[in-house]
Amino acid sequence: MAACLLRGCLSSSLRPSLLLSASGCRQASEAVARVMEDVEYTGPCMKTEVPGPISKSLSKQLEVVQNVLQVNFFCDYDESRGNYLVDVDGNRMLDVYTQIASIPIGYNHPALTKIMTDPMNLGAFINRPALGMLPPGKYPEKLLGGLMSVAPRGLGRVQTMACGSCSNENAYKAIFIWYRNKQRGHNIPSQEEERTSVINQGPGCPDLTLLSFMGGFHGRTLGCLATTHTKAIQKVDVPTFDWPIAPYPQLRYPLEEHQRENSQEEARCLEQAEDLIVKWALKGRPVAGVVIEPIQAEGGDNHASFDFYRKLRGIAKKHGCAFLVDEVQTGGGSTGKFWAHEHWGLDDPADIVSFSKKMLTGGYFLKDEFQPDKPFRIFNTWLGDHTKNLFLNEVIKVIRTENLMEEVQRSGRVMLQGLYELQAKYPHLLSRARGLGTFCAVDVRDEDTRNSLLIKARNKGLVLGGCGTSSIRFRPALVFKERHAHLFLDIFNDAIAELK
Amino acid sequence: MAACLLRGCLSSSLRPSLLLSASGCRQASEAVARVMEDVEYTGPCMKTEVPGPISKSLSKQLEVVQNVLQVNFFCDYDESRGNYLVDVDGNRMLDVYTQIASIPIGYNHPALTKIMTDPMNLGAFINRPALGMLPPGKYPEKLLGGLMSVAPRGLGRVQTMACGSCSNENAYKAIFIWYRNKQRGHNIPSQEEERTSVINQGPGCPDLTLLSFMGGFHGRTLGCLATTHTKAIQKVDVPTFDWPIAPYPQLRYPLEEHQRENSQEEARCLEQAEDLIVKWALKGRPVAGVVIEPIQAEGGDNHASFDFYRKLRGIAKKHGCAFLVDEVQTGGGSTGKFWAHEHWGLDDPADIVSFSKKMLTGGYFLKDEFQPDKPFRIFNTWLGDHTKNLFLNEVIKVIRTENLMEEVQRSGRVMLQGLYELQAKYPHLLSRARGLGTFCAVDVRDEDTRNSLLIKARNKGLVLGGCGTSSIRFRPALVFKERHAHLFLDIFNDAIAELK
Repeated sequence: MAACLLRGCLSSSLRPSLLLSASGCRQASEAVARVMEDVEYTGPCMKTEVPGPISKSLSKQLEVVQNVLQVNFFCDYDESRGNYLVDVDGNRMLDVYTQIASIPIGYNHPALTKIMTDPMNLGAFINRPALGMLPPGKYPEKLLGGLMSVAPRGLGRVQTMACGSCSNENAYKAIFIWYRNKQRGHNIPSQEEERTSVINQGPGCPDLTLLSFMGGFHGRTLGCLATTHTKAIQKVDVPTFDWPIAPYPQLRYPLEEHQRENSQEEARCLEQAEDLIVKWALKGRPVAGVVIEPIQAEGGDNHASFDFYRKLRGIAKKHGCAFLVDEVQTGGGSTGKFWAHEHWGLDDPADIVSFSKKMLTGGYFLKDEFQPDKPFRIFNTWLGDHTKNLFLNEVIKVIRTENLMEEVQRSGRVMLQGLYELQAKYPHLLSRARGLGTFCAVDVRDEDTRNSLLIKARNKGLVLGGCGTSSIRFRPALVFKERHAHLFLDIFNDAIAELK
Repeated sequence: MAACLLRGCLSSSLRPSLLLSASGCRQASEAVARVMEDVEYTGPCMKTEVPGPISKSLSKQLEVVQNVLQVNFFCDYDESRGNYLVDVDGNRMLDVYTQIASIPIGYNHPALTKIMTDPMNLGAFINRPALGMLPPGKYPEKLLGGLMSVAPRGLGRVQTMACGSCSNENAYKAIFIWYRNKQRGHNIPSQEEERTSVINQGPGCPDLTLLSFMGGFHGRTLGCLATTHTKAIQKVDVPTFDWPIAPYPQLRYPLEEHQRENSQEEARCLEQAEDLIVKWALKGRPVAGVVIEPIQAEGGDNHASFDFYRKLRGIAKKHGCAFLVDEVQTGGGSTGKFWAHEHWGLDDPADIVSFSKKMLTGGYFLKDEFQPDKPFRIFNTWLGDHTKNLFLNEVIKVIRTENLMEEVQRSGRVMLQGLYELQAKYPHLLSRARGLGTFCAVDVRDEDTRNSLLIKARNKGLVLGGCGTSSIRFRPALVFKERHAHLFLDIFNDAIAELK
């Protein structure tokens, strides 16, 4: 391992900083033609423990004005490349967490540099439009050529937002508006509804609910938080809505080896979900929509079978509830399909699919009937950020030209196979390896051991993230190739071997 | 008027497109040394009705995938300069609405171009960090030199967010957490609280409330929406919290000419606010915080006296409620002070001040005791966008070097005096002219007349926005000088004169 790290340090020290250390635009544009392979480092290179002395000193500076309890270390984003995150102390780490799964094609991809150095894009960056009222002339073209070119089947419209929480908040509103229109049989609220809505009373503010799942995570604003059920620290002390919560299947992995017992568990959860929909309708607080992640990420990388999701979609439809798939973390390619829910093979498409993170812009795709027919019902000042659309369009091109979906499938197979081998090698430490594409995870014996493993791995040049109580989630960028997967497994193995 | 417009068209047609029409970075950087005066147009120049044919055609393209009901027209942001917004049909308009009050120093200010063309900033734009976990090395310096350099007195900490709604949502959470810690006498939730919070039940999810005001606007996500009481269209059909709502003073303008009756009205509102705080505490649903705008903007540009706000702050303190000032629209200089609430002369500072729009990044300033002492209580993936901090720092420098706060006071005086004269000239059409700095408004006879006036003004090259039922709000950028104010009044007068 040490030899490998040294090799990385040496070989990359011979490589000039191609992209960003130069002092002008020209040099940056020269790099544009290059592909990621030409500029990426060949391995991690560690100089200090992480956080190192410079990170620690910056943390002291920052803590005077801001919470630094969750700061891991400070980064040198100019020096980071591809799958490698460089910190301010000069440590270079293989990044298998990618800013909480939000870097799509690695650091400083030449295609994204091109966006920045194209003078035709300057105006878009400097002048942020109120996209809903005064969009730039190129907005329709960029939306149609970008976001809409990757729209899930059956969803013909899109609404951009600034972040994942705002995407879900507004998707929830779209669902409630759709449901009330359906209930009243037309789209025109009564004067009484209008009057009471302004003062937070019914019938204008109806007692509708959303069904969510234990272990689900949909964001931290107050509407989203009512459907998030992961860690207490995210929810405690904050008022919320009393909405129904169904159990999410607790399955055994690998799923294909435990089909019988897993399908019993899934049947139990589906039955409870349907029961809740029926009961809450009887209570006069009907379920307007069902919201679920294709894989519960923050909640511990919990999977359910594709059949579970198909049946849940059927239940939602049967009871007239909207079906919202939250792809904020799963969307954008890391499961081996652009949208994780494409694995399910739904006959009837989802009604709304929300996204953010790797998509760079937040937002949601929707069926026609979920678009309010009046202006300003779904609205805010910025409605996203057009510059993120520009970056996204380039990301989509790179995914196509570099065949990244195939790469994800290939490196995902290496990762998962490697994790199976590691859990066989360390059965007292690791269990429940699971994954779809490179969207993989493994459970560690307990929370303390997991946290200690994360730090050991980091000090060996591997950035990972936790999820659930004692899981580790792997979230590489889409440019994570088979060779990166092997390197990851190598370092991860070394870190595990050091655990008591 | 026609002569004036023609003059504008001619003179600017002699002026090459300095900033953005060139084909490389070099030309853009040459422009950096210039100030806005050198590159701005000298007046509006109208070629078609607005929206013109190209805007209409783009609208048809966009409506296939997105709601276009609220689209005014499509813009050419590359060609826009300073106070002038150019549309895709080549119409050049004096912009006194500035993307719903969110453009701080006009379009394409050379100082902002500089940020974009500085290769040292490339990495910040291309690689969006999870700011709470992996901030860039320059983050503390940029935060201390930028946001913290304009922090309101008494607020020593800042939390960035992506937009105004997220800023308020998280400020609300900070208030609830602070209040519960105060109630229980320590910062450690019980196991019962932790357990129940995850399933949306008390005591973990407490029945706390926020006091807001009729006519207030604090955003459109579900938490914010519970404190927003402006238009039914923003709220109807969406479930909400049953929280107390106090009346906001309905005053006569100019405030200084109606002090006695206004102060009676304010006393009535303050009494009701205090009554609500007492009553809701007795109901077991205590008011954890009071949230208010310094001027109700979306709700109709409603002002209250500085004394009203000082007294309200006192009431909040007396009853142990946090005092949150929402400066999303008023913050950043347009009232003639950087923060509108600085006009009040509070003895005891506000507890939290939220911002967005002209600040380019969202977020809130807070007193120490409003920062949770545990990680991940106030958190999300991006926690804002560091590139907006880079722009903001430059905006703050420009405000200082170009003495923009003084300019705002000067042009604000011209605007308000001009509005007084116009309402004296057209008493059957205009009333209640009011303003602080350039943050001015006037009421129009009725909603239809207001809407018709907005369109007439636009076709004469003046972009304005409505608010409340029949008001027009004026929201120029900080680079709006006295000559722009005169030009604005000139065109506005012409538009009014055309009304029946």
